[in-house]
Amino acid sequence: MIIVMKLDASDSQLMEVCQQLENMGYQHHLIRGVERLVIGAVGEAKLNGKEILETMPAVEKVLPVRHPFKLVSREFKPEDSVVWVGGNKEMGGIPVGGEEIVVMAGPCAVENREQIQSAAQLIKASGGRILRGGAFKPRTSPYTFQGLAEKGLQLLAEAGQKAGLPVVSEVINPEDVDVVAQYTDLLQIGARNMQNFALLRRVGRISKPVLLKRGLASTIEEWLMAAEYIVAEGNSQVILCERGIRTFETYTRNTLDLSAVPVVKHLSHLPVIVDPSHATGKWRWVQPMALAAIASGADGLLVEVHPDPAKALSDGPQSLNPAKFDRLIETLIPVVKAVGRELNLSQQQPA
Amino acid sequence: MIIVMKLDASDSQLMEVCQQLENMGYQHHLIRGVERLVIGAVGEAKLNGKEILETMPAVEKVLPVRHPFKLVSREFKPEDSVVWVGGNKEMGGIPVGGEEIVVMAGPCAVENREQIQSAAQLIKASGGRILRGGAFKPRTSPYTFQGLAEKGLQLLAEAGQKAGLPVVSEVINPEDVDVVAQYTDLLQIGARNMQNFALLRRVGRISKPVLLKRGLASTIEEWLMAAEYIVAEGNSQVILCERGIRTFETYTRNTLDLSAVPVVKHLSHLPVIVDPSHATGKWRWVQPMALAAIASGADGLLVEVHPDPAKALSDGPQSLNPAKFDRLIETLIPVVKAVGRELNLSQQQPA
Amino acid sequence: MIIVMKLDASDSQLMEVCQQLENMGYQHHLIRGVERLVIGAVGEAKLNGKEILETMPAVEKVLPVRHPFKLVSREFKPEDSVVWVGGNKEMGGIPVGGEEIVVMAGPCAVENREQIQSAAQLIKASGGRILRGGAFKPRTSPYTFQGLAEKGLQLLAEAGQKAGLPVVSEVINPEDVDVVAQYTDLLQIGARNMQNFALLRRVGRISKPVLLKRGLASTIEEWLMAAEYIVAEGNSQVILCERGIRTFETYTRNTLDLSAVPVVKHLSHLPVIVDPSHATGKWRWVQPMALAAIASGADGLLVEVHPDPAKALSDGPQSLNPAKFDRLIETLIPVVKAVGRELNLSQQQPA
Amino acid sequence: MIIVMKLDASDSQLMEVCQQLENMGYQHHLIRGVERLVIGAVGEAKLNGKEILETMPAVEKVLPVRHPFKLVSREFKPEDSVVWVGGNKEMGGIPVGGEEIVVMAGPCAVENREQIQSAAQLIKASGGRILRGGAFKPRTSPYTFQGLAEKGLQLLAEAGQKAGLPVVSEVINPEDVDVVAQYTDLLQIGARNMQNFALLRRVGRISKPVLLKRGLASTIEEWLMAAEYIVAEGNSQVILCERGIRTFETYTRNTLDLSAVPVVKHLSHLPVIVDPSHATGKWRWVQPMALAAIASGADGLLVEVHPDPAKALSDGPQSLNPAKFDRLIETLIPVVKAVGRELNLSQQQPA
Repeated sequence: MIIVMKLDASDSQLMEVCQQLENMGYQHHLIRGVERLVIGAVGEAKLNGKEILETMPAVEKVLPVRHPFKLVSREFKPEDSVVWVGGNKEMGGIPVGGEEIVVMAGPCAVENREQIQSAAQLIKASGGRILRGGAFKPRTSPYTFQGLAEKGLQLLAEAGQKAGLPVVSEVINPEDVDVVAQYTDLLQIGARNMQNFALLRRVGRISKPVLLKRGLASTIEEWLMAAEYIVAEGNSQVILCERGIRTFETYTRNTLDLSAVPVVKHLSHLPVIVDPSHATGKWRWVQPMALAAIASGADGLLVEVHPDPAKALSDGPQSLNPAKFDRLIETLIPVVKAVGRELNLSQQQPA
Repeated sequence: MIIVMKLDASDSQLMEVCQQLENMGYQHHLIRGVERLVIGAVGEAKLNGKEILETMPAVEKVLPVRHPFKLVSREFKPEDSVVWVGGNKEMGGIPVGGEEIVVMAGPCAVENREQIQSAAQLIKASGGRILRGGAFKPRTSPYTFQGLAEKGLQLLAEAGQKAGLPVVSEVINPEDVDVVAQYTDLLQIGARNMQNFALLRRVGRISKPVLLKRGLASTIEEWLMAAEYIVAEGNSQVILCERGIRTFETYTRNTLDLSAVPVVKHLSHLPVIVDPSHATGKWRWVQPMALAAIASGADGLLVEVHPDPAKALSDGPQSLNPAKFDRLIETLIPVVKAVGRELNLSQQQPA
Repeated sequence: MIIVMKLDASDSQLMEVCQQLENMGYQHHLIRGVERLVIGAVGEAKLNGKEILETMPAVEKVLPVRHPFKLVSREFKPEDSVVWVGGNKEMGGIPVGGEEIVVMAGPCAVENREQIQSAAQLIKASGGRILRGGAFKPRTSPYTFQGLAEKGLQLLAEAGQKAGLPVVSEVINPEDVDVVAQYTDLLQIGARNMQNFALLRRVGRISKPVLLKRGLASTIEEWLMAAEYIVAEGNSQVILCERGIRTFETYTRNTLDLSAVPVVKHLSHLPVIVDPSHATGKWRWVQPMALAAIASGADGLLVEVHPDPAKALSDGPQSLNPAKFDRLIETLIPVVKAVGRELNLSQQQPA
Repeated sequence: MIIVMKLDASDSQLMEVCQQLENMGYQHHLIRGVERLVIGAVGEAKLNGKEILETMPAVEKVLPVRHPFKLVSREFKPEDSVVWVGGNKEMGGIPVGGEEIVVMAGPCAVENREQIQSAAQLIKASGGRILRGGAFKPRTSPYTFQGLAEKGLQLLAEAGQKAGLPVVSEVINPEDVDVVAQYTDLLQIGARNMQNFALLRRVGRISKPVLLKRGLASTIEEWLMAAEYIVAEGNSQVILCERGIRTFETYTRNTLDLSAVPVVKHLSHLPVIVDPSHATGKWRWVQPMALAAIASGADGLLVEVHPDPAKALSDGPQSLNPAKFDRLIETLIPVVKAVGRELNLSQQQPA
C-alpha cells in the first residue's frame, strides 16, 4: 500500500499516519519527494486499512499495490483450470477450459416439453455440447413470462438426458439452489445477480460447477471478486462468462467486451466463455461475435437457439433458428482450428 | 406500438405482419411514407408482442408508444404519494414525500452497541429523523467485514428506540426479509439488488415501507420497473433513492445523477430521496451534493454519519463526523426554505 | 512515481529499472514488501517516463503520485480566480468566480436581427448578465442549420451592445478565432472541441477570456488538462463549464455531473459554471438542475432562452421561453441567498 | 416521423400539431389508440421538424423512422465500397474493403529518420501494407511530445517511399490539411476530432482517402454522420476505424467495441478497420484483439509497431516490437483464411 500525503501535511500529521500504520501491523518506509511525502506500507493487508487511512486529514490518497482477489488469481495457481460439466472424463463429462471449445446452446426459456426436446435434438445434431434453458427467469417487467420454475427444470433435465447433453440453467434465489442443483449439471448466476452475495455464498457450498456471468456494469476486478466469493466457500469449479457491459451505445443491447477475455485469462486461471446473444440482443450479430470471441481466446460460447424464434416467449429477436445455428457451427470450425483449438461436435459423442 | 418495415419489404411480408398483429388482437393502421411503410398497432399490450414482431424478417424496428410501468406511474396516480415510516401520523411516524424534507442518517454498518447508540444520539441532536445502520452488508470482497446480521438489527432497533428514531436497514436475501422487517421500520434494497427480482417480490408482500436504491447501471425506466415489482405484489409503500450511477469518471466513486430526481418526479408519484455519501465516496463532496439534491427537488437525504469515521469498519472515507453532520444540517436549512419545503428537526419532535 | 514490480521480477530486471530511473534523473527508493518489490522514484517528472517504465517487462504498473496539471491547480494558486467578462470592474465588466452568481443566457443560434435583439432585451429584463448566441454551430448532421457565421456574430454584438450585455459565442475552427474574438467578450470552446488542441492553443494566445466546456466523455483530469493547454499559452482567463457527460441513461440527453463542481473547485482555482440546457436536453429539467447547480457551488449558469422556442432553428426543445426564464430567475434568487452568494440582476446595472 | 401525443392532449392541441405538420409539408395520419393518439407524418424530412414538434406542449415524444445518414448508408449504395490507398490498381495502390485484409502499422509518432525507416523496413518485411506514423500529435498534456509536424511528414513519406509502402498520418487542424495531403496517401482523423466539423468539411474537399476514427464516446450513428460530412462535401473515399470507446472499465484503456464492425457493415457500404493498440493500451492485448477483429468481419488493422518500444516518445506500452509484430502476422494468417479473406503480404508485392 502506498500512502500519498497532502502537500501541506505537517510533521505531526505524518507521525499520526505512521503510528496508525504501526497499529495495523505495517512497516512503513518514507519517501521524501520533490513536492510530497509518500509512505510505503509493507505487511499483510488488514481489514479496511485503506479506508481508515483515507479518512486521515493529511492523506491525499492511498494506492493499493496488490490485486484484491487471491484464490482465483493466476499468481495463486499458474496453470489453467479445467471445469468438468456433467461428470468427469470417465463419466463422459465435458471439459471447459482445456484444448476444446465448448458450445452451450438452447432457448432463453424452457416453454414446454416439445420445445425443449426439439431444441435439444437440433443442438445435439449441429454440434452443441451443453443444453441451456431458463426455468427461473429474471425479467425487467413483472408482467412478462417469468419461467416455468421447477417444472421447467424437469423438462430441461429430461430433454438433456434424451439427447445426451448436460444441462445448464439459471438460479436467482438462494432458496432455489438445491432444486436447481438437483436437475442441472451447471448452475448459472446471471448478470443481474453477479453481486448477489447471498446467492454467491450459497452456490459456493454445493458440489456442482457454476457459470458466473459478468454484471452489466461490473469491472473485471469485481467480477473476479464475485468468483472469489464462490471459491472462498469451497467450490472452485467456476466458469466465467462475458456477456456484454452497459455503455452509451444503444444500437446493440450491450457492448460485448471481448478484451475482457485475454485480460481475465491473464489475471486468473479460470475458464472464460462468451455469450454473444445477450451481448448484442439481435441474432444478426451473434455469428460474427461468436467467431470473434473464439479468436480472442475464449474457451467456449453460450448461444440462444430456439426451434422457432418467432414463437419464443422471451428473447426471440436474439435467438438463432436451427439453420442459423448450423451455419454458426460451420463457420466456427475453421476459426477454432486457426487458433489451435479443437471443436468436438456432440453428435460424434456417445449419447 | 409502431412497426417500421424494411425498405425492401414485399407485399406478402407486409400481410404476414398484419396477420400476426391480428392474431395478437391488435388493430393495424398502415401509413405509406415516401420511402417506407409504417404500421400503427392499436390495442392492449400483449405478452412479448414487440419481441415476436422484431423476429419477423421484413420488420426494421418496433417502437413502443407507452411506458412499461403502470402502477408507479403518475398517469396512474397523478398526486404525490407520501410514505409513512415508523407508523402513521397519529403514531408519530415520519412522512416521506410531503412538504417535509427528511434526513436519514447513520453509520454504514452497525458495529457495536456503543457506536450505534452514540450515532443515534448525535443524529437525533443534529436533526436527523430516521436512523440508518447496516447489519447485512453487501461487500465486494468476501474478506471484508460483512455485518453483524441479526445481532446488528437488535442493536439498531434498540438505539432507534432509545433516541426516538425509526430505523432503516438493508436486506440482501429473501430469507432474511422477515427478520429485517421485525426490527426495522423501513427495509432498504441496495443498488446491487435492484434487479434481484426474488427479493423485490418478497418485500412486495410485507406491510412495511421499502427504500429502493437505483442500481449502478440501471436506467430510470428499469428502476421504476423494479418499483413496479414491489407495488404489483401489493406493497405500494416505496421510496426511491438515487445514489449515483457508474460512468467513466473515476474521481468520484459514482456519478450522482441528480437530473433523475425531477425526471422520476415527473414520471412517477413515488417519493425520491438522494444518497450523496455512496454517490461520491468521499465526505468532502457530501455537503455540496446534499444541498444540490434538495434544490433539484428531492424529498430527503440518506447520509452516512459515524461517531468516529477513522475507526469505521466500512465506508469511513465517505462518512461525516458529528461536527460535519451538524454543519450539513445548518447549511441545509436555508436551501430547504429556498425551495419552499420544511425541515422538521427531530430534536423538536416528541421522542 | 511509484513502480510496482511483477511478482517474478529478477534481480537483474530490478537493476535495469533502477538504471533506467537514474538515466531519467530520478532518485529511487526500494521498498521490499511481503510479496512484491515497489520502487519510489523521486525527482522532476520527465517526458513520458511513466510510459517508458511501463514497457519494461518486469514492471507490473506505474502509479503517478502527482496530478498532471500545474498552472490551473489550486496547489499552484490557492485563492479563487475571478475572470472578468466585457472588461474589468471600472469598465463595467462582469466578474465570474467571485461572490456573484452570473447567469449567461440566450438562444442556441443567432437566427436574425429581430430574434437576437428580442432575446437580448428579455434576458436583460429578467436578470441575465451575459448574452449567448451561436454563429458557428457544431451540428451532428451536415444537413441541419450550421449558423450564420460572421453575420451572426455581428448581429450578436449589436444586440449585446443595445442591451448593455457582454456576449459569448462559440468558436470551432482555429482560423475563426480572430473574427470571433473581434465581436465577442468571451469565446466558447464547445464540448466536442474540448480536446481540439490546435483550437485550445490558438485561444490561449488571445487576450479575451475563454469558456471551456467539458467534453461528453472527458474525465475531470482531462478537462483540467485542456484548460492547462490554454493557460500554458499565456491566457489564464478560463471559465470552466460542466454540461453533462455521456452515460447509459438516455432519458435525459446527457447526465449532468454536478459533483464535478465541488471537485473542480477543490482541484483548481478556476471558476466553474453549469449548462443545464445541453445537459438535460429538455426545458422541463432546466429549472430544477439550475437550482441544484448553484446549490452545489457553481459560479454561474449558461441557459438557452429563445423568444419563441417553437420557431427555433436549433435546440428548441431545451430552450426556455421568456416566461419560464423569468420563473427560473425568480426561483433562483432564494437559492443563491441560501448558499451565501449574490445575484446582481442586470436590469439594475448601468447599461 | 411518428408523433406520440400526451394522454391529456385536447382536440385543439391535436389540430395545432396537424396544422404544424401541414405547414412543414407533411401529410398526417391519425391513429387513435386505446389510451393515446399517435400521428404518422409522411413526407420529406424538414429542417429540425422533430425539434419544433417536440416543443409543442401536447406532444409526448417524436420518433424518427429513418436513419439520419444517407450517402454512407447501405440503402443508398448496397454493394461494398473499396477505397484505394496510394493510387488505383494500376498504380499499385492498396484496396481497403475488398477481399483482402490490410494491415497498417508503424510507430505512434515519427521521431527521427532512423526510427521511421527502421519501422518501415520491419513492417514491410513482416507483411504490413501501409505505414503509419504521427507528425501532428493530439496529446492530453501540453507538456508531452507533440510531434515533429511537417518535418515528421517528410521523414514518413521518405521512409514509405524507400520501403514501397503508402503512408497514413493524422491531421488535427484544418489549416494543415493541405500539407498532410501533400506527404501522405491517407489522412487520419483521430478519435478526439471525430466531431471537429470544420476539419471534416476540409478533408471532404480533397482528393485523397480519409481514415475516420470513431470518437471515444460517439455512437455508431454519430460516427456515420461524421462520415456523411466528408462524403457530402464530395470525398467518398472514407475508411472507418473502430478504436475503442470509453466505458467504466479501466483495466484496458478503452473498451474495443467489436460488435460495431458487423453493425457498421450492415448499415453502411464503407470499409471498416480496427485499431487494437489504442483500444487496449497495452501490447499484451493487441494480438488477441487483432485476431478477434478480423473474425468479426473487419477489413483491416491499424497497429502500433516500434523498433524499440522502450525508447518510444509516445505510446510505448501499447506498441509491438518487431518480434511481436511478426508473431501477430503469423497468427493472423490462419484466421484470415478461416473467414474466407486474403492477406497479401507486402513483401510479395512489387515495391
